[in-house]
Amino acid sequence: MTNVEARPRPGTAPATPTDLPERLAASAAQAPRSAAEIAGWLDERRRGNPSTVERVPFADLTGWEFAAGSGDLVHSTGRFFSVHGLRVRTDYGHRPEWEQPIIDQRDVAILGIVAREIDGVLHFLMQAKMEPGNVNTVQLSPTVQATSSNYLRAHKGAASRYVEYFIDRTRGRALVDVLQSEQGSWFVGKRNRNVVVEALGPVEPHDDFIWLTLGEIFALLREPHLVNMDARTVLSCLPIPTPGGASSTSWRTMPEVRSWLTERKANYALAADYAPLASVSGWRRTADEIVHDEERYFRVIGVRVSASNREVPGWCQPLLAPCSTGLAAFVMRRIGGTPHVLARADLRPGYRDVVEVGPTVQCTPDNYTGRPADEWPAYLDLVLSRRVRPIFDVVQSEEGGRFHHALTRHLIVEVGGGFPLGTPPDFAWLTLDQLGELTRHSYQLDMEARSLLLCLRGLATYR
Amino acid sequence: MTNVEARPRPGTAPATPTDLPERLAASAAQAPRSAAEIAGWLDERRRGNPSTVERVPFADLTGWEFAAGSGDLVHSTGRFFSVHGLRVRTDYGHRPEWEQPIIDQRDVAILGIVAREIDGVLHFLMQAKMEPGNVNTVQLSPTVQATSSNYLRAHKGAASRYVEYFIDRTRGRALVDVLQSEQGSWFVGKRNRNVVVEALGPVEPHDDFIWLTLGEIFALLREPHLVNMDARTVLSCLPIPTPGGASSTSWRTMPEVRSWLTERKANYALAADYAPLASVSGWRRTADEIVHDEERYFRVIGVRVSASNREVPGWCQPLLAPCSTGLAAFVMRRIGGTPHVLARADLRPGYRDVVEVGPTVQCTPDNYTGRPADEWPAYLDLVLSRRVRPIFDVVQSEEGGRFHHALTRHLIVEVGGGFPLGTPPDFAWLTLDQLGELTRHSYQLDMEARSLLLCLRGLATYR
Repeated sequence: MTNVEARPRPGTAPATPTDLPERLAASAAQAPRSAAEIAGWLDERRRGNPSTVERVPFADLTGWEFAAGSGDLVHSTGRFFSVHGLRVRTDYGHRPEWEQPIIDQRDVAILGIVAREIDGVLHFLMQAKMEPGNVNTVQLSPTVQATSSNYLRAHKGAASRYVEYFIDRTRGRALVDVLQSEQGSWFVGKRNRNVVVEALGPVEPHDDFIWLTLGEIFALLREPHLVNMDARTVLSCLPIPTPGGASSTSWRTMPEVRSWLTERKANYALAADYAPLASVSGWRRTADEIVHDEERYFRVIGVRVSASNREVPGWCQPLLAPCSTGLAAFVMRRIGGTPHVLARADLRPGYRDVVEVGPTVQCTPDNYTGRPADEWPAYLDLVLSRRVRPIFDVVQSEEGGRFHHALTRHLIVEVGGGFPLGTPPDFAWLTLDQLGELTRHSYQLDMEARSLLLCLRGLATYR
Repeated sequence: MTNVEARPRPGTAPATPTDLPERLAASAAQAPRSAAEIAGWLDERRRGNPSTVERVPFADLTGWEFAAGSGDLVHSTGRFFSVHGLRVRTDYGHRPEWEQPIIDQRDVAILGIVAREIDGVLHFLMQAKMEPGNVNTVQLSPTVQATSSNYLRAHKGAASRYVEYFIDRTRGRALVDVLQSEQGSWFVGKRNRNVVVEALGPVEPHDDFIWLTLGEIFALLREPHLVNMDARTVLSCLPIPTPGGASSTSWRTMPEVRSWLTERKANYALAADYAPLASVSGWRRTADEIVHDEERYFRVIGVRVSASNREVPGWCQPLLAPCSTGLAAFVMRRIGGTPHVLARADLRPGYRDVVEVGPTVQCTPDNYTGRPADEWPAYLDLVLSRRVRPIFDVVQSEEGGRFHHALTRHLIVEVGGGFPLGTPPDFAWLTLDQLGELTRHSYQLDMEARSLLLCLRGLATYR
C-alpha cells in the first residue's frame, strides 16, 4: 500500500470480497483425505523431526532470570516475554480482588495462513509445528506463527519460512487481517495479528507443510489436539457462511448485539495493575515452580527444549502449566428454527478492552471444588448435566509455545424449545453469523468462543 | 435485552437500520435557525447559570492530594480520576523514550445524545453545559455527559438528567453505541461510550437543553467553541451519508484499509508503564502547577469551581492546561473525482490499541520550535504553507472537564491533482465513507480525526 502510483480503481464496500464466503463454503464441502490420513502425515513429521522437552529448575533455565528487586521472570535480553504479577480489582463476579502471576508479551505475533486455490478449491497451507508445551509435541499450525522477536530474529536463528507473505504486500491479498486477544486470565494485553493471505503466485513447497481444504480441517477438529489454538483462531475469523444462507432470523439485531456488548464493556470496573512477581500474595516460588498456595489455577515451570525443525536447535523457556483441564461450553437453542448460542460478556483481567464475548461457560471446573455452589459460574451445572444433549465434545489444546499441556474441553450442548429465552444481563442469544460478525473487529469475541465457533462451523453440512 | 421473553423476530444484517443514513441526510438538510440564533440561546443559558472558575494552589485543592510515596495527584475517595506518571518507550517516531504526567480515568463515561423525530425530522437534544476548562464556560454538549462516578453519584449530588435513556433499554433504541478513545497523549487507556438513543416516547423538556437538527449543528461547527468535543465525537460515529451516494470510487478497498491499519498496529512496539508522578523526569512540581522543564507540552493546574446548574454547586479539581494551540489537519485530494483525505496511522502512548488512524498532521506546532526540521511531523510545513487551499479552518475546544483552554485548530486543506498519490507507510488515502466505517468499531479512528470528519460532513450540501 506504500509508495505506489496507480490509477484509482473502484472500491468495494463490503468488508470482504463478495465471493469469499462462497469460496469458503466450497472448500468446506471438500475433504478428499480423511482425518486419519492427515493425522498419519502429522505422525510422520513428528517422527521425522525428533524433539525433547524436559523440566528444569529455574536455576538451569538458561537465558532467563528473576529480575533483582521485582523477582519478575525475564529473558536476559529483555525480549520474548516475561512473567510478572498482576493486582486485580473489579466489580465483576464474586472475587473483588486478587493477585496472580501473568504472562506479559508485548510483541505482536503474526498468526498467518497462506491460502491458494488448487484445482478451483481454496486450500490453506498448514505447518506441522513442534511446540514444547504440546501434549503431542507436533500439531497443525498456521503457515507462520512468529512474534516479531522471532521474525526479526532476536534469537539469531533462521527466518520463519513464508513470513514474506505477511510483510510484502505484492505477494498476495489479505482475506482477513485483524488483531485478536488471547487467554485473558493468562496473558496481559496480548494481541496477535490473525491474517490469511491468498498467494498471487506459486508457493514453494516444504516437507513440514501441507495444503488442506476447510473440509479436511473441519474433520480434524473432531479429533483432539490436531489443529492448534493459533490455527483455530485465525480460521475462525474467516467469513465462513452458514449453510442455508444469512436470511435466517436472529433473536436480536446486530446493532442491538453491539449495543449490549458496548454497555457490558462500559458497565464493569477493572483495575489490573502491575505487581512485582516476588510480592504476589497467595503464590510462592520454589526451585522448580511458581505455585498457588492451594495448588489451584496454574503453575509456572521451566523447560529445556531441543528440536530439529525450529528456527534454533535448542532453548530454555518458562511455561504456564494449568493445574487442570478447562471447559469452554456453548448452550445452543433453536429460536424460530435458527441455531443460537448463549454467549456471555466475560471480564478477564488481561483483556485490553476489559470485556469480550465468551462461551456460555468458560472456566476450570476444578477451581470451584469445595466452593459454595452460588460462586459457581452460571450454567456450569447445566452444561455438565443430563438435561442437555451434547452435540460436540472434544478436548483441544491451547498454545503450546506458552502453555504446558493446557487442555480445554470444547463442549456444545443443545437444549429444547422449553429452555427459557430470558437471560441474566451478561448473557445474550447470538446466531453463528453474529458470532462471525464479532470476529471482524478486535476484542469482541474471545479466544475460546472463536475456537468453539470454528468447531460449530465444522458441524454444518456444506455439500 | 435482559429477562425478556418474546417471540423471535427477523434480524437485520446491516450494522445500522437501513433508513438511518437517509434520515440523517434529511436532518442535515434542515437548519431552520441560524448559528447566530442558537449561539444567542447559548449566551442566555450562560447568563442564566452563572459560574466562576479560579486557579488555586494545590494546597487549596479541596478533596485532592498528592499520594504519599508516589506523589500521584488523586482524589481522597480514590474515584473520579488521577494524574500519575507514564514511562514511554517506542520505536515509532523520533523519540524512543520519555516520561510525562498523564490523566488516568478508568471510569467509562456515557457520552449520550437523545434523538427524536420532530415534524418528520431527526433532532438531537443538546445541553448547554458549563465545564471549568471551557474558554467560554458553556458549550453545546451531549444530552448526558457523565462518568459512572457521576451517574452513580459518587459526589452525592443530583443524578444526571436524562441518564435513564442510556440505562433503561425500554425507553429508546440505540442508533449508535460504541466505545471510543480520547486524546492519547493526555489520557491513558481512556474509553468512553459514544451513544445516540432515539427516544420511543415523549421527552420531558428542560431549560438548559435544546433540540437541534444536524444541519443546525453543522452550521454551529463553522464557529469556534460552540459544539464541545464530546458532542463532536458522538455525532461523528453516526452513519451520515456522503451526498451523491456511496457508489463513489475509493483509492483502496475497505479490506485493504483494515489490513493496512492492522499491520500498522502490529508493527510498532510501545511500552507505556506507570511511573510515580513524583519521579517523572523532565517535569517539576511547584505550589501551583506541574510543569515541563522547558515549559513545553502542558501544565497540570488546580481550579475551584462554582456553578449553578451542575450536579453539585461547587468543587475543586485539577485540569491539564496545554501550553499552546494544537493543530489537527487533513490534506484532501480528489482521486477519480472522489474526495480522499490523507490519514495517518498514529501511535500515542495512551491508546488502548497502540495505534489509531489520525489526521494527516496532529501536533502542537510550538512544541517543535527550535527543533531540527527533520524532526517535524510529516506534512506540517505543507499544511501551513501557501501551496494548499484551506477549505475549513476553525479553532475548536477540547473537553473542558479535564482540559483548561485546550484549543485545536481544525484545518482541512485541498491539494490539486498534481499532488503525489504515493505515501510513506504510515499514511493512506481514505474517503469520508471509509473514515465513517472506521468509527463503527472501537479504537480505529482517533478523537481528532473523528472531529475533523464531522466538520467535513458539515461542508457537504445535503439539500
